[in-house]
Amino acid sequence: MTSLGNAVRPLPHYLVQRYHGWHATAFTENRAWYRRLADEGQRPRAMVISCCDSRVHVSSIFGADTGEFFIHRNIANLVPPYAPDGQQHGTSAAVEYAVKELRVAHLLVMGHSQCGGVAGCHAMCSGHAPELEEATSFVGRWMDILRPGYEQIKDLPESEQVPALERVAVQISLQNLMGFPFVAEAVEAGTLTLHGLLHDIGDGQLTMLDGGRFVPV
Amino acid sequence: MTSLGNAVRPLPHYLVQRYHGWHATAFTENRAWYRRLADEGQRPRAMVISCCDSRVHVSSIFGADTGEFFIHRNIANLVPPYAPDGQQHGTSAAVEYAVKELRVAHLLVMGHSQCGGVAGCHAMCSGHAPELEEATSFVGRWMDILRPGYEQIKDLPESEQVPALERVAVQISLQNLMGFPFVAEAVEAGTLTLHGLLHDIGDGQLTMLDGGRFVPV
Amino acid sequence: MTSLGNAVRPLPHYLVQRYHGWHATAFTENRAWYRRLADEGQRPRAMVISCCDSRVHVSSIFGADTGEFFIHRNIANLVPPYAPDGQQHGTSAAVEYAVKELRVAHLLVMGHSQCGGVAGCHAMCSGHAPELEEATSFVGRWMDILRPGYEQIKDLPESEQVPALERVAVQISLQNLMGFPFVAEAVEAGTLTLHGLLHDIGDGQLTMLDGGRFVPV
Amino acid sequence: MTSLGNAVRPLPHYLVQRYHGWHATAFTENRAWYRRLADEGQRPRAMVISCCDSRVHVSSIFGADTGEFFIHRNIANLVPPYAPDGQQHGTSAAVEYAVKELRVAHLLVMGHSQCGGVAGCHAMCSGHAPELEEATSFVGRWMDILRPGYEQIKDLPESEQVPALERVAVQISLQNLMGFPFVAEAVEAGTLTLHGLLHDIGDGQLTMLDGGRFVPV
Repeated sequence: MTSLGNAVRPLPHYLVQRYHGWHATAFTENRAWYRRLADEGQRPRAMVISCCDSRVHVSSIFGADTGEFFIHRNIANLVPPYAPDGQQHGTSAAVEYAVKELRVAHLLVMGHSQCGGVAGCHAMCSGHAPELEEATSFVGRWMDILRPGYEQIKDLPESEQVPALERVAVQISLQNLMGFPFVAEAVEAGTLTLHGLLHDIGDGQLTMLDGGRFVPV
Repeated sequence: MTSLGNAVRPLPHYLVQRYHGWHATAFTENRAWYRRLADEGQRPRAMVISCCDSRVHVSSIFGADTGEFFIHRNIANLVPPYAPDGQQHGTSAAVEYAVKELRVAHLLVMGHSQCGGVAGCHAMCSGHAPELEEATSFVGRWMDILRPGYEQIKDLPESEQVPALERVAVQISLQNLMGFPFVAEAVEAGTLTLHGLLHDIGDGQLTMLDGGRFVPV
Repeated sequence: MTSLGNAVRPLPHYLVQRYHGWHATAFTENRAWYRRLADEGQRPRAMVISCCDSRVHVSSIFGADTGEFFIHRNIANLVPPYAPDGQQHGTSAAVEYAVKELRVAHLLVMGHSQCGGVAGCHAMCSGHAPELEEATSFVGRWMDILRPGYEQIKDLPESEQVPALERVAVQISLQNLMGFPFVAEAVEAGTLTLHGLLHDIGDGQLTMLDGGRFVPV
Repeated sequence: MTSLGNAVRPLPHYLVQRYHGWHATAFTENRAWYRRLADEGQRPRAMVISCCDSRVHVSSIFGADTGEFFIHRNIANLVPPYAPDGQQHGTSAAVEYAVKELRVAHLLVMGHSQCGGVAGCHAMCSGHAPELEEATSFVGRWMDILRPGYEQIKDLPESEQVPALERVAVQISLQNLMGFPFVAEAVEAGTLTLHGLLHDIGDGQLTMLDGGRFVPV
């Protein structure tokens, strides 16, 4: 591991201080529960797929504490199509583990407003971001998952396209989820429900997919 | 979207209630900041790569509020080797976006004790989980990233192997990160620091990689 | 009270947050009614006796809001025989208060499937839980109330015994209730009706005692 | 069971209707989780001891859903002293089951304002309710648990005595809890924390015992 010696640094002090504060307060007051979670393993009720965006806080929005949500976060909260091709699919692995191993009861896909990934996808598909088209662009290739969605929104008025694509990102992820046999089977068996959500960063509103449309919760 | 009609359900009521409580309190008291985050975009200081495990709470451990951390969570907090092959790499996309677009100053890889993904990798590599060896196992193929690490720990006493592999998972991810040209360049230029952390679920302890070893922060 | 100093802790933060959310929403929208309930006292229409089990939600099942149900919850929803012996009988006190002081119109005893208390009683009576037979076992002595019920089900096929005992627990509690003079008098006078219910945790079904048998409501 | 034939009636129709509404909505949307809770058993994080009073809603105050709280409700949220005398102690049985069998991490005792049980105890101890002194009074004998508390508040100004006794009821219950060896051991071992709360029915405020005093949460 010596090759990492110079690149890896001690934790910045401001985070060390906050960690010690957390351990002396929040950890201590929940010590019994955390000990038990360690000894007995997790049993989350739901999986949440949301964006990496620093403005999205899944746990606080739902008043959830340690142990409640199995959380996967990636760029633009996307689920790729089912592809059991022997390649590495981190999102598919997380879904597989949550549904088959942990047997979560709910699977929430939560998109959000002002999503940089979705905006990038829109720029790419509309010809304004050729660098994202390159094979070496990880973000571009990842956003290819949402490319079929561009067709659904490209004829809307300019200003409505990106917000519409944010909604489509949630819907395509849910459709792709239904393409996973073990997801479809669990939904069919009534042991799993899917949910589509969209969170507005600025006004805090949460809407949910209901009958094909996003309505306020 | 009609095909989703029956599979996608409204949000469970207990989460709706909690959301409304959050909106009336935490959101309202931070409304000005959230409005600004929406209008001006995010500007996170750090990226964190951690596990999906419901027992790991990145934000609370570091007292972080909305806007501070760009968070990617996948099974076992793994970063795959750099592979600009035109395929979909969700983790690599998140790293690329954080380093090149958001220009985060710190990149933290945080592992944790009792990790189901690492335990699965150990079972697979030691011949006890043939189902994970199948090409169709998303979890198995994802954990292939950690397979080289098994060689480093397989000669340890039995009871020490999995905990050691949890540490190695952090180290391999950091090494793989250094294989991304834009990461290495940012580290070299002094605009990015890498950090390796391990969180113990049961006793709350946080250790960090320092000089090749994990020491308490 | 200093002796409690170290043992009693502040409320875990996740519950503090949820409470503040509740106060800002549910409480606020019902403020007028709660104010009146505080000033004028409660006037519940029914008393419910159910189990402590975390999977049983009396209020939600019956869409009841604050003020409707006087609720006593104990292990296995049991009512002991009438015994005015000067000893402490928490369940009898609750029944007395509900019937004589609050004059509730209905008294519901609601059992449920997968009841740990009933299963423990079955294990004890069938000789598989000697530790519950000890005088110092509070659970064992409490479940003695249901001991006569074991005689009614012990000759059934093995797999039917515990579910049958869950039904008998409701029936014995109702019979014991009728042994309380003030309950029998209120029933006789037509000012109180008794009801026996059984709730299935897994499929949500609710059955009620009608003519000596449990039938779907 | 025929002796119950005339006393036990079908469920009132308004409750049948609400139940069917619940089953078609709340149950259905959580079917997967409830199925799992039935199959795997409960794993509540906390036990709550609160009053039977119809104006106290434990679950809603804490945004808790099915499976989170093991709830015992009796008159005035009292815990009697530890008395392993082979008699029936319903509250002690519930505490024993929660701590030894379910190993909850938190034990909350939640009192409330305008408590009829506490007011009755005050009337009894101050000589205004001779009927409660009778051996046959279940409520009186139950409230004997709080009798030592009367000594602590009897010299306060008249109007402050009952509210003070409500606080003392929580404290005495917590002290009695610490007299249960398995509770004291779990607290000592750090696997259980105790919490004292007081809920104001009228203004919704929640205070907690902290350093011997009740302070707003």
